[in-house]
Amino acid sequence: MAIVLGPNRYGKAETRVVRVTKDAGVHHVKDCNVSVSLSGDMDQVHLSGDNAAVLTTDAQKNTVFAFAKKYGIGEIEEFALTLARHFVDSQPTIRHARVEVEEYGWDRIPVQEAPHLGLRAEQHSFVRNGSEVRTALVHSDGSGADESVVSGLTDLVVLNSTGSEFHGYIEDEYTTLQPTDDRVLATAVTARWRHRSAEAATAFGRSYRAARQCLLEAFAETHSLSLQQTLYQMGRRVLNERREICEVRMAMPNKHHFVVDLEPFGMDNDNEVFYAADRPYGLIEGSVLTDDAPDPLFAWE
Amino acid sequence: MAIVLGPNRYGKAETRVVRVTKDAGVHHVKDCNVSVSLSGDMDQVHLSGDNAAVLTTDAQKNTVFAFAKKYGIGEIEEFALTLARHFVDSQPTIRHARVEVEEYGWDRIPVQEAPHLGLRAEQHSFVRNGSEVRTALVHSDGSGADESVVSGLTDLVVLNSTGSEFHGYIEDEYTTLQPTDDRVLATAVTARWRHRSAEAATAFGRSYRAARQCLLEAFAETHSLSLQQTLYQMGRRVLNERREICEVRMAMPNKHHFVVDLEPFGMDNDNEVFYAADRPYGLIEGSVLTDDAPDPLFAWE
Amino acid sequence: MAIVLGPNRYGKAETRVVRVTKDAGVHHVKDCNVSVSLSGDMDQVHLSGDNAAVLTTDAQKNTVFAFAKKYGIGEIEEFALTLARHFVDSQPTIRHARVEVEEYGWDRIPVQEAPHLGLRAEQHSFVRNGSEVRTALVHSDGSGADESVVSGLTDLVVLNSTGSEFHGYIEDEYTTLQPTDDRVLATAVTARWRHRSAEAATAFGRSYRAARQCLLEAFAETHSLSLQQTLYQMGRRVLNERREICEVRMAMPNKHHFVVDLEPFGMDNDNEVFYAADRPYGLIEGSVLTDDAPDPLFAWE
Amino acid sequence: MAIVLGPNRYGKAETRVVRVTKDAGVHHVKDCNVSVSLSGDMDQVHLSGDNAAVLTTDAQKNTVFAFAKKYGIGEIEEFALTLARHFVDSQPTIRHARVEVEEYGWDRIPVQEAPHLGLRAEQHSFVRNGSEVRTALVHSDGSGADESVVSGLTDLVVLNSTGSEFHGYIEDEYTTLQPTDDRVLATAVTARWRHRSAEAATAFGRSYRAARQCLLEAFAETHSLSLQQTLYQMGRRVLNERREICEVRMAMPNKHHFVVDLEPFGMDNDNEVFYAADRPYGLIEGSVLTDDAPDPLFAWE
Repeated sequence: MAIVLGPNRYGKAETRVVRVTKDAGVHHVKDCNVSVSLSGDMDQVHLSGDNAAVLTTDAQKNTVFAFAKKYGIGEIEEFALTLARHFVDSQPTIRHARVEVEEYGWDRIPVQEAPHLGLRAEQHSFVRNGSEVRTALVHSDGSGADESVVSGLTDLVVLNSTGSEFHGYIEDEYTTLQPTDDRVLATAVTARWRHRSAEAATAFGRSYRAARQCLLEAFAETHSLSLQQTLYQMGRRVLNERREICEVRMAMPNKHHFVVDLEPFGMDNDNEVFYAADRPYGLIEGSVLTDDAPDPLFAWE
Repeated sequence: MAIVLGPNRYGKAETRVVRVTKDAGVHHVKDCNVSVSLSGDMDQVHLSGDNAAVLTTDAQKNTVFAFAKKYGIGEIEEFALTLARHFVDSQPTIRHARVEVEEYGWDRIPVQEAPHLGLRAEQHSFVRNGSEVRTALVHSDGSGADESVVSGLTDLVVLNSTGSEFHGYIEDEYTTLQPTDDRVLATAVTARWRHRSAEAATAFGRSYRAARQCLLEAFAETHSLSLQQTLYQMGRRVLNERREICEVRMAMPNKHHFVVDLEPFGMDNDNEVFYAADRPYGLIEGSVLTDDAPDPLFAWE
Repeated sequence: MAIVLGPNRYGKAETRVVRVTKDAGVHHVKDCNVSVSLSGDMDQVHLSGDNAAVLTTDAQKNTVFAFAKKYGIGEIEEFALTLARHFVDSQPTIRHARVEVEEYGWDRIPVQEAPHLGLRAEQHSFVRNGSEVRTALVHSDGSGADESVVSGLTDLVVLNSTGSEFHGYIEDEYTTLQPTDDRVLATAVTARWRHRSAEAATAFGRSYRAARQCLLEAFAETHSLSLQQTLYQMGRRVLNERREICEVRMAMPNKHHFVVDLEPFGMDNDNEVFYAADRPYGLIEGSVLTDDAPDPLFAWE
Repeated sequence: MAIVLGPNRYGKAETRVVRVTKDAGVHHVKDCNVSVSLSGDMDQVHLSGDNAAVLTTDAQKNTVFAFAKKYGIGEIEEFALTLARHFVDSQPTIRHARVEVEEYGWDRIPVQEAPHLGLRAEQHSFVRNGSEVRTALVHSDGSGADESVVSGLTDLVVLNSTGSEFHGYIEDEYTTLQPTDDRVLATAVTARWRHRSAEAATAFGRSYRAARQCLLEAFAETHSLSLQQTLYQMGRRVLNERREICEVRMAMPNKHHFVVDLEPFGMDNDNEVFYAADRPYGLIEGSVLTDDAPDPLFAWE
């Protein structure tokens, strides 16, 4: 029996970069969290501590900042691709790069004219616009070689106050749940969707906004008999509307809202008062894809 | 030397109640986290474990749910007052109640007509609208006795990408900071404001929205020489605009955005690329009030 | 009606400093999180943005690091006092300093002899020893002037699997809880205790360890009729054993462990299987002090 | 182009179960967080909302509690296997079960004799013993069919204050890091290790304790030229010592401890004062395995 090195990767995680661009006095802000993971000829660094093949994680961080200056941060998928290709293209020992980006959204603060400032304040004043986070996950074996692009979002918290049922399930000896034809359905959507090609770059922003809207609409418009059905309809809607996307993966906790029993206090409760529970929670995970989806390769890793 | 019992209080914290109201097929959602603290004749429960004076925290939780049904949840200040008065008025051993409520905001999901659902989906479908949380903190010695109402918000994250300077400070032997006449100013505002009277109840919603807007506008419109100056202007704006409010207290971390040194890479950086740091951070805390503000009593406890 | 500035303070929060000392090849580690808040002649910085009275939070951070080198970090109460006095003594505009320190504990990793390392590895290898955090909160008006020292801990999580009852409480119309003569009692103790004098410095370490042990023993040995009774006994034990301490304040969530109803599955449950709930939770807060305790001044602020 | 359902699973996550056993007045506590994920004939629940194949997540939760009573909670790997096999064996529509368990450790509170309690208090009083968490991840296709067992731990936070170097790496145009022959090396180990067989059950506890000790010792005893080298040595140590284990996977953030520059204050800093940074951080992920390790199947999913 010998002991061998298996799959490995390393990099700088969570570089928090904010890029400001100025357009005739109007500022724009991109606020991102960038995580890089590289792999390649890394046997010796593990076996003997020889770092000759290692591009330091500190240099990776510097590259994130320098590229934010040099290229700006447009759509996060593009920025991630530019970084990933650079690491593989520029270093012979780096064979593969994985770059993950989270983007936090900002809105302009609407204000009155403030001529004494020289600028109108709303041109450079911003407020974080919510709790959901846009994500991109990119892999590259180098320019012209195998690549993948996955877009997504996390923490999109949604709730239907009616239009959801749950019944007809298995009743085993440990089943005590009562069926219902009207419940609250609430979840915090984590969704990621795979693009057919890494070349679609020009339209990543429009694609993101449309896919997000598909998820919201399908959640709202599906009369739900199970959270799985809702998840499937959400993925299906994205694939029907966006031909550049070939697969959607979702994880959706069932954030239980229990109808409080008010009978002891002489009150009925016709789905009016709920206790929002933390744990445990149902967790539904699933993938929806087109039957002509290309091989995902390393896309989801 | 004798050992004595000092100030004490007890209650049920973080009851997560969701109240749905239905208005001709259109649903409304109030999503709150309610924390109750009671005090009164509690010597014996501490000294001997005699619970005769104790209203259980379980009953407090039940009361939150029952009142959500009975009275609905209108403005959170009102709901908190109703609960606080009830506990003191109904139990001779309870002399004082403190009720704190956090409210999470939801927007409607805009959708197409969906006549096959019977309802239009947007009438009962919601998405969490952001990261800031509205708060209320209420104290009551009982109906007709001393009371206080503090409204507020947490996690209002704002950023000015210019219009902020910092210079002219003390330079002691441990000072290495360079002065600047142009920096990013970013913070996560926690603000609470005290009402002159607990009777303003009819207008708590309008008052909240106006105060929030004052904070945003003053942050955006103040050309800042220090975060303290910005804080003061924010409080001042609220007090100038809202006569029902007599004091504003704020805690504002200086979320440092450091200009990245790109010189080693042959690049300048004219406030374009920033590293957003986590810790340490500056923390500015201050109060702004009117000179005729009534005694706060227990309002801030 | 005029608008005026109220109480305010500012400083650098959460400077994460690690101090290594080396004693003939044996290393010692102190791992702390230091938060400084200063106040004084700060009207102009708020009113006009004039920073002439401001010692920057950056310089405060530098001072933490420089003092860690210059004086080492002994007991955290001493380190906090040294910092607090320095800020007030050295700057005429600073009238008062508040310094808070959290300390994270490390144990040595026990290893075999490793002579090929030059050192034995256990002389410089450490593992974090748990989840509770030691705390110190110090205030100073300057050397020789008013000062206060509060020691404490957070997140000391304890559980009694029997020896706890709860009954005899008020039964109002919202009470459904059943009394019990045997329950699990679990809590996460946050305790802080005030020293009679800031001069006790030589013995802060021994005092801390003894107070912690008092809290643990009193929790374990009290047959509890209410969590309030347990809290009181814990404070009392500290005051009885440690004459240098004059007041103990505690916040103890009742981390509910509900007996799971297994009857539907044909099983009894004699306090064997529990569901550990997150929210809501009871929250018991109280103070125990000696009747000759000196005025706390600003100690708890 | 057709749209199809891809891989999916569902279950109840984070059931917090505490099991007390009583042995002649001496209590024992097992404190676990159990997450179940099931998969099988789930097409219809996604496509049409037909729940006929669905064992509810509520029933899964009930099963966790009922099995905690019926079988007790011994080693968490065994408990997870018992649950996983039950779900597949008892329901024809369930083809595969994944069960993940976290276990939180408790120590006894050492106390004096307390004969007035009937029991000695230490027999039923406990304190949480630290921040690391023991984990188990089990998959089963049913009794007698394919199964896998992965044990592990998270948040084992360790630090070497010397004995670590870093140099000899690539120097590209974005490299500014200076090489060092003496640095602090600190990480929070997440490690998981795969057992050759699911049948080793009798010894899971002893195996866990030995593997944990291997990780600690190898971290302490490795004179490190890179964190990758340390990671490899940690995995290697486990595999050399524990023949029941065939693969170890680790994720280790490089928790940077930066030497603070004290020169501006006229002080040197010979690795004595460090700033412990939060983000960004290096992240090293790797696997070490034996060359005769069986196919992992679904073990790591």
